[in-house]
Amino acid sequence: MTQSTQYKHEHLLSEKGKSRSFTHFYRSFPLPDNFKAHPKPLELVGGVPNFQIFPVESLKVGLRSKPFPNGYDTDAQVNAATANAAPSKDALSFDVLVDASEVNKVAEKDHHEEIDIKTGLQYSNTPGMDPLLKFTKDFTKEVIHPGYEDWNTILTLGGANGAYKAFEAVFNEGDVLLAQEFTFTPVVQSAKDIGFDIVSVPMDFQPTTKGGKAELTYADHLSKLLDNWATEQPGKPKPKAFYVIPDGQNPLGFSESLEHKKKVLELAEKHDFLIIEDEPYAYLNFQPVTEEPNFQLTTKEFIEALGDSYISLDTTGRVIRLESFSKVYAPGVRTGFIVGHKRVIELITEYTMVSTRNPSGLSQIVLNNTISALGGLQGYLGWIINVRNEYLKRKNALVLALQHSESVKKGWAYVNDAECGMFVTFVVNTGDAESKHEYMMNEFRLATAQTGVLTVSGGNLSISEEAKKERANFVRISLASAPDLKTLEEAAKRLSDAVVLLHKDDKQ
Amino acid sequence: MTQSTQYKHEHLLSEKGKSRSFTHFYRSFPLPDNFKAHPKPLELVGGVPNFQIFPVESLKVGLRSKPFPNGYDTDAQVNAATANAAPSKDALSFDVLVDASEVNKVAEKDHHEEIDIKTGLQYSNTPGMDPLLKFTKDFTKEVIHPGYEDWNTILTLGGANGAYKAFEAVFNEGDVLLAQEFTFTPVVQSAKDIGFDIVSVPMDFQPTTKGGKAELTYADHLSKLLDNWATEQPGKPKPKAFYVIPDGQNPLGFSESLEHKKKVLELAEKHDFLIIEDEPYAYLNFQPVTEEPNFQLTTKEFIEALGDSYISLDTTGRVIRLESFSKVYAPGVRTGFIVGHKRVIELITEYTMVSTRNPSGLSQIVLNNTISALGGLQGYLGWIINVRNEYLKRKNALVLALQHSESVKKGWAYVNDAECGMFVTFVVNTGDAESKHEYMMNEFRLATAQTGVLTVSGGNLSISEEAKKERANFVRISLASAPDLKTLEEAAKRLSDAVVLLHKDDKQ
Repeated sequence: MTQSTQYKHEHLLSEKGKSRSFTHFYRSFPLPDNFKAHPKPLELVGGVPNFQIFPVESLKVGLRSKPFPNGYDTDAQVNAATANAAPSKDALSFDVLVDASEVNKVAEKDHHEEIDIKTGLQYSNTPGMDPLLKFTKDFTKEVIHPGYEDWNTILTLGGANGAYKAFEAVFNEGDVLLAQEFTFTPVVQSAKDIGFDIVSVPMDFQPTTKGGKAELTYADHLSKLLDNWATEQPGKPKPKAFYVIPDGQNPLGFSESLEHKKKVLELAEKHDFLIIEDEPYAYLNFQPVTEEPNFQLTTKEFIEALGDSYISLDTTGRVIRLESFSKVYAPGVRTGFIVGHKRVIELITEYTMVSTRNPSGLSQIVLNNTISALGGLQGYLGWIINVRNEYLKRKNALVLALQHSESVKKGWAYVNDAECGMFVTFVVNTGDAESKHEYMMNEFRLATAQTGVLTVSGGNLSISEEAKKERANFVRISLASAPDLKTLEEAAKRLSDAVVLLHKDDKQ
Repeated sequence: MTQSTQYKHEHLLSEKGKSRSFTHFYRSFPLPDNFKAHPKPLELVGGVPNFQIFPVESLKVGLRSKPFPNGYDTDAQVNAATANAAPSKDALSFDVLVDASEVNKVAEKDHHEEIDIKTGLQYSNTPGMDPLLKFTKDFTKEVIHPGYEDWNTILTLGGANGAYKAFEAVFNEGDVLLAQEFTFTPVVQSAKDIGFDIVSVPMDFQPTTKGGKAELTYADHLSKLLDNWATEQPGKPKPKAFYVIPDGQNPLGFSESLEHKKKVLELAEKHDFLIIEDEPYAYLNFQPVTEEPNFQLTTKEFIEALGDSYISLDTTGRVIRLESFSKVYAPGVRTGFIVGHKRVIELITEYTMVSTRNPSGLSQIVLNNTISALGGLQGYLGWIINVRNEYLKRKNALVLALQHSESVKKGWAYVNDAECGMFVTFVVNTGDAESKHEYMMNEFRLATAQTGVLTVSGGNLSISEEAKKERANFVRISLASAPDLKTLEEAAKRLSDAVVLLHKDDKQ
């Protein structure tokens, strides 16, 4: 495994990652030239059970025609009763075959291969079973289109596992990762585990009450930090990578502009670090509440609306992209994938062999054959558009309800018209007095306990003590689990009411 | 998380493992006394999708009545054609409900709870979903019966992942693991990764041509090694743990006697190390070919025949047991579990949160609800007995064919009547001349390529250079993947023929 000479950023990879070389005990032995080997040897090699001892003999999977196929049903009782009812109208279903080798011989254009029981319940290739791994490559080509040639993919056990494996491929003990000051904080635990430091990058974000375009920027802070590294972070080595959630930022709900991404990529080139872009939310891509929502996107329009990502702008294999099936399919499949330079994927593959091996074969069967039943990549994108439409409805309902709420109208709070993802930011106006900030946020959290709405405090999603103190005057509202739009509207009211409670003694 | 004071062997756990403390950003905030919180708050907390956006709406799983329900079919063509045929006679099937909360309320005795789609496809608890985790505890109690009270269980992503996680909980860099000189060699890769050393323990094993009881022993070697540690392994710290495959040893197929296990456990107490027992094969428990095979075992007889394990003899939480569903259910579920002292499980849980999270929900649904459909633990044990019966038939066919083969009859080779597991050892008699050993094994491997049978060289399954040189004059024959008994008998003939080829110039 020596593709190292082909990879420009080899010096940014971890020593442990580069040192691995997994040798399997099934290795064959060399035969002399002209040796007459038996043409049909019997293989009694691995502890690989014959499929006829697997208990599962058949599998039939029924699919929803779309999210909430029967509309919303706010009555929890009725909901539970209908949950097991007849399949939704126009729903597809598929049988998983014991042996799909005949089916897979079909050479139709766009034929998406199925995984059968015999293969799916067996030991299998670490990077992923062939049809699903091929799908990740097709998806990458058509939807993500990296800006460099030598990319590859590998399945992971979901987003968090993907991040851990990417970090493992990059960091030695004592190395430095840059991350946004508000971010998916479990990265801190990965850092402790692998032994690298995290340096946070301050962010500017400006929610708007008018639904106009607000922007998240941090490139200037990042530039300043890197230019003055020795004085800003004395004693620390320069960073090897930047962890970023560019689209549907968690927790803030913003997407970075193309221009901003270009600036950050320039900084990565100037200061020589990798970019690890975590994009679980990227496909839940919205329009502002001021626009008429388009629920009839074609797959072409959908892909175009996604725009450019860091990896599509990258020409040298500097970007590693983390994908997850959790948000657009289901978290329980515990499956995602990584796109990166083939050398990076090589390191991650070796680590995967030692640590986790491939994701569940049942997950791979159900995921892959769903894609097949939907008609391949185009059909799967159709499903994602349906999911995006559901989240767009949710986002609009919540943002509009907050915009029209008393607290926002009075200027006591602001709401971010989220551009993408699962989260809307509700900012409490704590005024200019910095000393009052922490006190007011605490009062606000108590008030929400009283009005009855649970969200996540901005401070809990920060890796910076300064940001927690000075810029965490917001909560993250999740669009994901609510049973319907009315619940989101009621939550908006309760959040606003909580802010109003803070001002109950103000002159009105 | 401070149960450390209750655990006698705390000093044998890794510093990294002990230092973890995962804090989730969903944590709640404290409310003042007498605070009047809303009775029904709306939760908009996690990025946890509503189940109505999961594409999967229904799932129906059909089960085989037993392994090879339609008997053997040696014709590969016909096999492929019938693979997708009608379900086997007496086969069960089950529907996975979207919402099983009503079903799970049933309070019947032995009622095994089902996992529904709503739960199984969602994010879930790291140690495992409640019904399956409860099953691992019931199984542990009834079948494994640890000798100490404070044990707990956690699901893993299969046997190899379980081993990695157990090692991670124990070893700091530079620590020492003991392992059998012939073993599951991928542990070497885990050792490199985590940074510990492996010291191999020499083994005595004596296959028999007569089908009588041969024995695997190593306690005396182990005792000698430990008593003379400073001179035998100068500069190395004393070992923190011993990795052992006690039943159906891989590659040798032996099971350790109760007496031998007691000796080893005494050594563990005397020299203060943990025992990590890896038992994926333990339930494929055989009878010698000289006995009439009992294919009608009751579950009680089956459990009794398993006998005592290291963990059942352990009274202080010194033993960690690794279990896998790969060999008795299917490898593709990528699921196993660990039994250990609750403090050890606590450390493994923290690491699991950071690294892999829980096994696939689809795997957990299918595994758990299979157990439910089979009637709970007793029914599941019935399935395992069926699998064991299939392997017993295979073992007997292969061992008898080898015993009656020309090479064994002539004393040029020996066969081990495997006591348990998936593997039979075929030993080539290389004579007394040590210098001839490597040459003959190489010739033998070439001869098998000519007669047409692929197995694994003993040397590939050794971690000791000395053992590879002096005691690796055997191959490991897998019973697992062959389509029928005839294939095993043909393989026996080809193995024997290969030995005969080595002697073709001998006077006969």
